[in-house]
Parts: sequence; C-alpha cells; structure tokens
Amino acid sequence: MQQKQVLLLTKPIKEKAIKELYYKELPSIATICIADLGCSSAELNNLSVVSELIHSIEKARRDLGNGRQQDYQVYLNDLPSNDFNTIFGSLSSFEINLKQEMGDDFGHCFVNGVPGSFYGRLFPNKHLHFVHSSYSLMWLSQVPKGIQDNKGNIYIARTTPPNVLKAYYDQFEKDFSTFLRCRSEEVITGGMMVLTILGRKSDEQYTKESCYEWELFANALNDMVFEEEKLNTFNIPQYTPSATELGLIIEKEGSFTLDQTHVSEVNWEANENQKNKSVNHYDFVKCMRSVIEPLLISHFGDTVIEELFDKYMDIVRVSMAQEKNVFINVTISLTRKE
Amino acid sequence: MQQKQVLLLTKPIKEKAIKELYYKELPSIATICIADLGCSSAELNNLSVVSELIHSIEKARRDLGNGRQQDYQVYLNDLPSNDFNTIFGSLSSFEINLKQEMGDDFGHCFVNGVPGSFYGRLFPNKHLHFVHSSYSLMWLSQVPKGIQDNKGNIYIARTTPPNVLKAYYDQFEKDFSTFLRCRSEEVITGGMMVLTILGRKSDEQYTKESCYEWELFANALNDMVFEEEKLNTFNIPQYTPSATELGLIIEKEGSFTLDQTHVSEVNWEANENQKNKSVNHYDFVKCMRSVIEPLLISHFGDTVIEELFDKYMDIVRVSMAQEKNVFINVTISLTRKE
Repeated sequence: MQQKQVLLLTKPIKEKAIKELYYKELPSIATICIADLGCSSAELNNLSVVSELIHSIEKARRDLGNGRQQDYQVYLNDLPSNDFNTIFGSLSSFEINLKQEMGDDFGHCFVNGVPGSFYGRLFPNKHLHFVHSSYSLMWLSQVPKGIQDNKGNIYIARTTPPNVLKAYYDQFEKDFSTFLRCRSEEVITGGMMVLTILGRKSDEQYTKESCYEWELFANALNDMVFEEEKLNTFNIPQYTPSATELGLIIEKEGSFTLDQTHVSEVNWEANENQKNKSVNHYDFVKCMRSVIEPLLISHFGDTVIEELFDKYMDIVRVSMAQEKNVFINVTISLTRKE
Repeated sequence: MQQKQVLLLTKPIKEKAIKELYYKELPSIATICIADLGCSSAELNNLSVVSELIHSIEKARRDLGNGRQQDYQVYLNDLPSNDFNTIFGSLSSFEINLKQEMGDDFGHCFVNGVPGSFYGRLFPNKHLHFVHSSYSLMWLSQVPKGIQDNKGNIYIARTTPPNVLKAYYDQFEKDFSTFLRCRSEEVITGGMMVLTILGRKSDEQYTKESCYEWELFANALNDMVFEEEKLNTFNIPQYTPSATELGLIIEKEGSFTLDQTHVSEVNWEANENQKNKSVNHYDFVKCMRSVIEPLLISHFGDTVIEELFDKYMDIVRVSMAQEKNVFINVTISLTRKE
C-alpha cells in the first residue's frame, strides 16, 4: 500500500541512519550486509529500497574519500510462500542499472533470497550491518487468542471491548519483542535498523486512522451471507502500534537504542491529483486485496472473493467521496547496543 | 538425471573431504558457509545433498567431542530463471526433519537462495567453507563459436571435425577457468569443493558414453521437418570433460589443489531392476526433457515439442532394448591453496 510514497517519506530518516552508520562503523568492512525484511514480491518495494540504501552508502563513502571498492551482500526476506521467482526475475536489470549509476569504482552487490519468518532467526550471529523493513511488522505471527468477544468486527473497532484490545496489544508486544531479540543476535554492535510500521498517532488503541480500512471491510463481510460462526472466527492478524508503544517495547527488550522516531501519513488515494477518482478506488482495493486475499481464501474459500471485493469497492467509493482517509506510518531508527 | 544414484556414488568422496576440512579448519568457526551451485529445483537434489553434508559435519563435530552448537549458512544457487519458489516451499519440512534427526544440540541452519550464474561472482571474498556442485558444470556459458562445420550434429558426434572439437574444449576451458577464478576469491584458504561433472573416461573427445544421448536426440531432430538453417544452428551448450582435462585446467588456473578424482558410471535406466522397461524409458526422456526443453522452445518454438519427444522416446526405446547405455560422472575434490 502506497509503498512509493512511504519510501519517499522515510528517505531522510534512512539516509541519516545509514550515513551515521557508515561514518562510525563501516569504512573498513569489506562486505556490508543489508537485510530487507518482509520485502514482498512487488518489484517497486524490495529493489528500490536496496538501490536507495546502496546509493546512500556510496555517497558517504565518496564524501569520506574512501577509494576502496565496497562490496554488498543484500538479503531479501519474506515468508517462503512469497513469490521469490518474480523478484529474482528482475535482478538482472537491477544489477545493470546499479552498475551504470555507480560507475567504475563500484564493487559487487550479491543478492540473496531468505525465505522464513522474521519472528524467528534468519541470519548468523553478528552478521548484519543494516536492517530495513517497511509495512511488514504490523503483521502478527498469529491472530491473538481470546478475542471472541469482538463480534461483528475483524480488527480493533469502535465497539471492541477492553479485554480484546489487551489481547491485540499483548500479541504485538510478544511478536515485536521476539523480532528485536532475534535481530539483536544478528546485528553487529553499532548496527542499525530502520523500521516503518503501519501504526497510529493517538495513544488510544481505537482510532479511525489505524482501523478504518478494516471497519469498512467488516461491513462488506457482514453484507455477505455467511454462517455466524464462520464470520465471528475471521480476524485480521495485525496490530497498528503507536510510537509510544514501540518505544516501551524497545526499552523493555533492551538490546537496541531508539535514535529517531518519525510519524507520517499517506492518503488512501495514492495519487490525490488523479482526476478520475475510480482509478484511486481501484488501486486502493487492489492493494488491500493483494494483502488479505490469501487469508480470506483459507477461511471462506475462493468462491466468495469476487463478490466480496465488489461490495468492498462500493463501500470504499462512498467513503472516499465523503471523507479523507489516511494511513499513519511510524518510522523508527534503532542502534544495536554494546 | 540419475541424481539419487549420483549422490550415493559420490557420498564417500564428499564425506572424506568434509571430514578433513572439519578436522583442519572448522571447529572454531561459528557459522559454516556451504554453497550448492546449480542446485536446480528438484527437491531431491538440492536439499538431500545439504542434509547429507550437514550430517557429515555434525558427525565429525561429535567425533571430535566438540560440544559447541554449530550454525550453518547454506546457499542454494542456480540461474535466476530456476524455480526457487518450489525449493523454498519444501524448506520447512527439511528444517523440521533436520532438527529431529540432529537432536537438541543442533544449532541453526539458515538457507538462502542465490540467483545468478556461477560463471560470475556470487559471494563475498573468503566467505565459503565448502562448495558442492553436481551435474551442472558440464553446461557451458554459451554455445562455442566456430562450430558451423558440425552439420547434422547437435553436440560432439562421430563425424565432428577436429576444429569443432577444439572449439568445444576451448569454451569449456574458458568457462571452467572462470568458475575456478571466481570461487578462488570466495572460498577461504583451506576451504574445499567437491564437484561432480557429467564427463567421460576416455581421453578421446568423442566417445559413445559421453555423447550418445545427444546423437540419438539429433536423430529425432533430423526426423522432423525443419529448415536446414534452423537445424544447423541448434547446438547443445555442453562439454563432457575427462578427468585429465579437468586436472590440466585446475593446474593451469592455479588456485586449487586437486585432492581426489573419482570416475563412476550410472546406467541410463535409473532402476535396472524395473520389470516394466517403459517406466525407465519414460523417466529417462522426462529427465532429458526437463534439461533441454527451454533451449528447444527458444530455438524452434513450442509447437514442435510434443512430436519431437515422441520421436525421441521411440528412438530411446529401441536403443535401450539393444544396448546398455551409461553416463560417466567425474567427481573431483579440491582445496583452496594458501
């Protein structure tokens, strides 16, 4: 969703982090190891960010007058079910472009695919120098336990009771702590992570800006003819944290220092200048569909999908005509402590 | 082709190499880096060999009384067009099995996909401890130049003139030297490679055992109605070297010591005890087809494929009834010099 905008919005924080890291730690390291966690298979996402990071490092290298060619080992991670074939298919043009843009004194860039969950170990000890992740860490490892009281909803909503809010937060705290603990083994002392997570501004767990796309989706689901039991057991394994919550979990886990926090927002309409609004509606629904279609199919079967997204499209169209809807991005920059 | 047999046949040479390597170099290394080059997407191939190698190392570790958990970083390499999604889909059962077989004191095994040609750089400097490759290095980086005199043939055949034989060898020498030079940067001093290459026993470049499957395939092609030009420009980018040739190239390139050479043969009939011979014919043709179908489609288009392989099946059936055909495997074990 809106990945291009998000990459642009978070560019300064990434550039600052990587420049600091390079000046402090990296000039003498032969191969800089970079991981993009939850890279997905959308070409725009995974390879643009890698290219951007390498540009920043190469700039820092030249600014420092370091004439030694720098090698890179780049790890693109996602779940094993991700379409790695598509990513690998676009590698050769990526490598040609990189070589052209960087000129003759550019070293090697070795790109690897890493299939697996980032809620487990993915890399050897003290191996990574820089970790990036965008729009992935709001996904929980599982639907929280004990949320059966959240009837009629599929995520946190206006009517969600406090025990369910707690269950969502507890699952996120557990997952994000696990993520930090795993990465703390893998990232060198002084190494950095820049993570962008779909989140919220408010300290309240329910806010429109962090839940509304799912409230509308629940409306579409409730319009369909499903057994009540089937409907009540469908929930989105997601949590949209606030910067405060992230800060607390990072402090409690203890392996990383929080250097920078940046909260930004992007419109649901990827292109606000688009005259033909139906293009924006279509893009938005297509994005949402790519994200949740596998979950829906495994729960409801694939026969309902077209009708469901037709209904969702209608609901989104009405909403977008009446109100401006936004996603909130929380971007944090972390350093691995001694 | 016959990969299971080949893995078994070459098991002793791999075990010997990896045991020597472990005793000499590895007990103090936190993460052992292993690469399987040209892994293909056949599950049997890539993950069996990894599992076998890790078993050998773990055995050596226990024999030495080394109680420290050993981590592994395993790289599965093939061309970017390889089906990595299928490999990654079988990873989770591979990891569960490994954990079960190895017991509680087993460390981590991190598996990565490495898309790219092994005739170029794939890994950082001095990164790999052990390299494996099976049934891949007979594939050339391209069809040799200057083989237009080899009319009616698609590979080295009985009627191939001397200048064409030389062109095939020159291309192989160039490619295999490039392979060695690239790996010499990537493998640590004392690190080892065990390579199994489809080859030949004889010093003569034309021998039935190294060329016959392509002679029969040329017969099938010549039975089809193609333009002469189209037929004459189709050639198999392969070379089946002798152990002597491999030794010469290794010595000339100079980065590796040749420790062991082992020549073995496998029957075209994967299962000689199979009563229903048509199963063997089918398996053989299926194997050959998986290897060359992409080359055929890009040269002749996809409309001819079914007819072509029907003809090949007929020819193979007749040949297998009359004679015993074998593939020759040349397996070499190399150590990176100081």
